Amino acid sequence: MEMARRGEVSAAMEVVARKEGLGVNEVREEVARGRMVIPANKHHANLSPIGIGIAARCKVNANIGCSPERSDVGEEVEKLRVCLRYGADTVMDLSTGSNVEAVRAAILAACPAPLGTVPVYEVASKVGDICRASAGECIEVVRAQAEQGVDFMTIHAGLLRRMVPLAARRRLGIVSRGGAQMARWMQANEAENPYYTHFEEILEICREHDVTISLGDGLRPGCLADASDAAQFAELDVLGELTERSWAAGVQVMVEGPGHIPLDEVAMNVERQIRVCKGAPFYVLGPVVCDIAPGYDHITSAIGAAVAAMAGAAMLCYVTPKEHLGLPDAEDVRAGIIAYKIAAHAGDVGRKRRGARDRDDAMADARKAFDWERQFALALDPARAREYYEASNAGVGREGKEYCTMCGKEFCAVRVSREVSEAKA
Amino acid sequence: MEMARRGEVSAAMEVVARKEGLGVNEVREEVARGRMVIPANKHHANLSPIGIGIAARCKVNANIGCSPERSDVGEEVEKLRVCLRYGADTVMDLSTGSNVEAVRAAILAACPAPLGTVPVYEVASKVGDICRASAGECIEVVRAQAEQGVDFMTIHAGLLRRMVPLAARRRLGIVSRGGAQMARWMQANEAENPYYTHFEEILEICREHDVTISLGDGLRPGCLADASDAAQFAELDVLGELTERSWAAGVQVMVEGPGHIPLDEVAMNVERQIRVCKGAPFYVLGPVVCDIAPGYDHITSAIGAAVAAMAGAAMLCYVTPKEHLGLPDAEDVRAGIIAYKIAAHAGDVGRKRRGARDRDDAMADARKAFDWERQFALALDPARAREYYEASNAGVGREGKEYCTMCGKEFCAVRVSREVSEAKA
Repeated sequence: MEMARRGEVSAAMEVVARKEGLGVNEVREEVARGRMVIPANKHHANLSPIGIGIAARCKVNANIGCSPERSDVGEEVEKLRVCLRYGADTVMDLSTGSNVEAVRAAILAACPAPLGTVPVYEVASKVGDICRASAGECIEVVRAQAEQGVDFMTIHAGLLRRMVPLAARRRLGIVSRGGAQMARWMQANEAENPYYTHFEEILEICREHDVTISLGDGLRPGCLADASDAAQFAELDVLGELTERSWAAGVQVMVEGPGHIPLDEVAMNVERQIRVCKGAPFYVLGPVVCDIAPGYDHITSAIGAAVAAMAGAAMLCYVTPKEHLGLPDAEDVRAGIIAYKIAAHAGDVGRKRRGARDRDDAMADARKAFDWERQFALALDPARAREYYEASNAGVGREGKEYCTMCGKEFCAVRVSREVSEAKA
Repeated sequence: MEMARRGEVSAAMEVVARKEGLGVNEVREEVARGRMVIPANKHHANLSPIGIGIAARCKVNANIGCSPERSDVGEEVEKLRVCLRYGADTVMDLSTGSNVEAVRAAILAACPAPLGTVPVYEVASKVGDICRASAGECIEVVRAQAEQGVDFMTIHAGLLRRMVPLAARRRLGIVSRGGAQMARWMQANEAENPYYTHFEEILEICREHDVTISLGDGLRPGCLADASDAAQFAELDVLGELTERSWAAGVQVMVEGPGHIPLDEVAMNVERQIRVCKGAPFYVLGPVVCDIAPGYDHITSAIGAAVAAMAGAAMLCYVTPKEHLGLPDAEDVRAGIIAYKIAAHAGDVGRKRRGARDRDDAMADARKAFDWERQFALALDPARAREYYEASNAGVGREGKEYCTMCGKEFCAVRVSREVSEAKA
């Protein structure tokens, strides 16, 4: 960020400009203004940098990580492979429990995408009960993870003591794991949030190791009834203040957002964040637009995510079908990522980002030509598209097959329409 | 519709008022104005009527039906059961091939939901080549289906001869099966669309048997590049004219809509239809908001459908994961319906329809109470929610389990948040 402000172009900026089809100066200016972040810890050796911001394609983050109830390094590395295979732009390791350092080390070593964490999880996992952790222990975990190579960290510094009563009046209270831990800490210690009181020390560490801060929203609503309430927006105002303090310290920052939000309030939430946080990239979780579909929350939230992306969200944190029910496995990770690639792409097309529709146009051409192999190649999930096609068309050769079982040959609109056009020519 | 205009309240209107939580006079006025339809063929004995219109909850239609490549009466009745089980409000039998009458008879006998068809499919299936069908044969199929008890019929009367060259200039041409058949017919016979030239006869049949017309959009775009183009809107203008002619004849009418539409154009499309068709209920197919996700088009289209619902669409035609690839099976039907129940509900909540959020609020309360059984009962797909929960929490008793494997006990935000609230009290 400091290089960008001095007018210098880093190697990472060049890579991002190439990936996004943007000019290097455009990227430099967006980074200098804080409207784009390039999370790139200088200790993350195998990193391929990406840009997150309103000028770039909308990005997708996938969460992985073990819980105390289910913890296996091999399984998490396998989930990481699934993330990378299906196109997650960033990955967050949200592990909790006794195994967090080993899991993170294994993931970092295998991860060319920017890796994010939530340091308070490790603090709580280490001391057992978050209430016994000192502010110094919270800071030390940030430092250790920065030295290990973590590219961005969720810091729950915006949830202040005075907001806890606002959250207590809610229908569902606090649903952010980090937020709930901080509320407990403040209550037990009768003191202000240590991530807030020690924010300058965190900024120093992040500046030293090039860590991007992701300001956590500990008071994100957990149901439609709590959306856009006093608690949520009180925290957002503090996140706006912390954004400016990060910029003043030369630290890259993005801001996390809701949560559960009714469809008609999604765009308003994005616009309000952009205003309050002066254009810092908005990184939204969903949002989930209805509460009644456990087992399908990759879909409820992809709806909100697409609308958020179109309204200007810079990155979407995926939700898997297991949300609200259990820890996702590799197949859930795949389902979540594809749902979010769809949402991000729909947002890119809806914002009319340069070239966003090119792949759709190529797909239309492949459909017209009945080029099934090309259709599979252009699909977000080629293996799934092929699997469904072949299951439905078993025993029929693909070569020259100018229809599918959906309509059958005589009723294939594309085939008939092509004949109509040719007859006219 | 004529009863409603005379100020009379039918038994069907009373049922609809009760189902929707609306006043009977409100329903009567909406029906009289043409803003709500109650598709109810007087020969459909076991029908439980529903209202489709902007004043009512947004509805979901599920398509079933065989194709010449795959045709089995038992399989279609099984799909119907899945439709009803997962909450489809209406069902369309889109069968093609030699078996259409037997399939339709079996479906009608088992279907308390309004049943729709596309008569041109039967015409083409009967004569083999649509081009050899006479206008009289087209009308006779409408009459036979009306006598059989079909509640609403898609009539492709808006695609006129002068529009075929507009469609031929498109990237993907015509993708509506019915639309493509009509284009071929007009080209081969060098004559105007028989459903348009004989529209008054169709109205007479529909009036006699209480059949609701669903004006088909034969020129709906089949890819983002063709969205909102001259061909689409030329047909829409004719649909507006046919809407008024239907009303003049005392026939209930709704209007079908796109298709593939970029996210930023979805609301505009709904608003334009409402304007051009004077508030006749809009029945949209998706719309699909990106072309690159074959295998996941229940999701790409649920995004568009939710936004359309919020903008005022009255009914959403579902899309299954097999769209663009093959004929759906029962499991695909389930996935499609749930995705669309989500979209319709998100739209209802987004429009702030009376009571729309009650079930979400009950779910929030069940989550706070860790009442898993109640959560499953409130879920759109209870079996799936239970299955995922139990798979992730195998071996742990559900009684008193105040967390799930997603976060684990120590990190369960809801549990921690509740403790924080209780400590304050």
